[in-house]
Amino acid sequence: MEIGKEIRVFAPASVANVTCGFDILGFPLSGTGDELSLIAIEEPIIRIKSIEGFDLPLDPEKNVAGVVIKKFIQDMNIKTGFELSLKKGIKPGSGMGSSAASAAAAAFAINELAGKPLSTKELVKYAMEGEKLASGIPHADNVAPALLGDFVLIRSYEPLDIIQLKAPEELYCTVVHPHIQVKTEDSRMILKKQISLKKAIEQWGNVAGLITGILTSDYQLIGRSMQDVIIEPVRSILIPKFKEVKESVLKNGALGCGISGSGPSIFTLSKGERNARNVQDTMRKIYQNIGVDFDIHVSKINKQGTHLI
Amino acid sequence: MEIGKEIRVFAPASVANVTCGFDILGFPLSGTGDELSLIAIEEPIIRIKSIEGFDLPLDPEKNVAGVVIKKFIQDMNIKTGFELSLKKGIKPGSGMGSSAASAAAAAFAINELAGKPLSTKELVKYAMEGEKLASGIPHADNVAPALLGDFVLIRSYEPLDIIQLKAPEELYCTVVHPHIQVKTEDSRMILKKQISLKKAIEQWGNVAGLITGILTSDYQLIGRSMQDVIIEPVRSILIPKFKEVKESVLKNGALGCGISGSGPSIFTLSKGERNARNVQDTMRKIYQNIGVDFDIHVSKINKQGTHLI
Repeated sequence: MEIGKEIRVFAPASVANVTCGFDILGFPLSGTGDELSLIAIEEPIIRIKSIEGFDLPLDPEKNVAGVVIKKFIQDMNIKTGFELSLKKGIKPGSGMGSSAASAAAAAFAINELAGKPLSTKELVKYAMEGEKLASGIPHADNVAPALLGDFVLIRSYEPLDIIQLKAPEELYCTVVHPHIQVKTEDSRMILKKQISLKKAIEQWGNVAGLITGILTSDYQLIGRSMQDVIIEPVRSILIPKFKEVKESVLKNGALGCGISGSGPSIFTLSKGERNARNVQDTMRKIYQNIGVDFDIHVSKINKQGTHLI
Repeated sequence: MEIGKEIRVFAPASVANVTCGFDILGFPLSGTGDELSLIAIEEPIIRIKSIEGFDLPLDPEKNVAGVVIKKFIQDMNIKTGFELSLKKGIKPGSGMGSSAASAAAAAFAINELAGKPLSTKELVKYAMEGEKLASGIPHADNVAPALLGDFVLIRSYEPLDIIQLKAPEELYCTVVHPHIQVKTEDSRMILKKQISLKKAIEQWGNVAGLITGILTSDYQLIGRSMQDVIIEPVRSILIPKFKEVKESVLKNGALGCGISGSGPSIFTLSKGERNARNVQDTMRKIYQNIGVDFDIHVSKINKQGTHLI
């Protein structure tokens, strides 16, 4: 480890769950995310020098980037320390993979500094440590897409089986973040632990359709398959104007619409940028009308994932 | 309708459910199936002249081919009658799509005689009438693959959304039919109506993996994804030696193994014919040892579906 060497990385925001793909599917956005600078230092400690953008703990034990780096140091038997600075581009609790971006950035950066002992895919389990701290559950459906780019399927957790799916070229995402807070724990808590077999079959029919649509660039099939009959009916009640947004965007260029992660952000997929911009206008009007603050991002599906800057 | 004209068709056996793809996925076999001859007659009745192979009702109201033809005649406002002869190659109650093959053959044959007013895909809903008679449920996961060939996904029933998935070139199926009877109604009855969300997520992760494996010809991924954590644990208890067969075939060339339809047949998928033959030998030994009669079929995934002979 070269003392004093600095690595700077960008890790994107991401959309997990993707309607029917609850807990197994996600994709990253372009242009929105976290920047992290990591410097190897002599003293064998993890020091968080600064966090810009949002108020988050500087104690490395309580910070997602901190715990990712700690786990990597332990496993790789690294004797030096690290100082990190973080520039948050995603608001925590937005449902756009804020903690995942910091975790992915930290895993990617320390792996670079250590001379790349691990592949990007192998970094997923380190980034998952950050998710465990943030939400209590080491889920991978934000960190894996944030690290790898493209759609990413988490087929299984034990063993961890991560499969990248090439995103169709003209697929755009519009995501609106109404500024209300929904905690991942809370939105997990309201889920039913038992569901009907009938609904489950509907859901996995749609999952199969969505995967087929993605892999064959069948945009209409992607749209038809973007239905979540299990989680959305429960969680969407936590999101103001969800139903109205969904109905309106489907009439104005969106192939499909759902909750981003555990909310409150709402995402759509559209074919082509023009449709994605129409969706943006539609969302803007609805939230302007009710006086809720919000921001909206339009981007292609990010194919690059976390990278050096 | 040309009176006296005869159409002869072959409709293949098929495997529905395909482990995690319960109720949404199926594929047809090659070389095993039903042959149907259909002749337009002047008298406006449906007459079943003969059924070879297995003892099934000659009353057209109680015969799957009969009800399919009746529905087609009604919808298309056909004034002539039809006489049919059926040569069954699949034992009813085997779990290999016996009723589906007769239904598919009937729908295909009458559409040919009528000058092809419908596409093969449009025939699915007619063939489903046969399934409704046979099991009480108009399921499509045998008739759609039997008609179309290749893997077929039933994304949704309302509206009916049927998607053909090109099967990987080297994919073979071995299916063993131990000669015990499991009725579709009985095997439906023992299923739990409520399942845990956790298991459902596992299942749709595997469905996503299986579809990805099929569409990208990733044989190992197909194998890893062929897991059914919901239906198989319940239904497999009705099938003698299921566990032993599964464990043995996975050690002897099978990518994955599961219940064919609602059983008692057990199917595997393998890469290449040699592996599929090894699986055949393994299955044979197990059932020979316990003195249960059986038959085994080895075939590529059928890409042709129902066709004229």
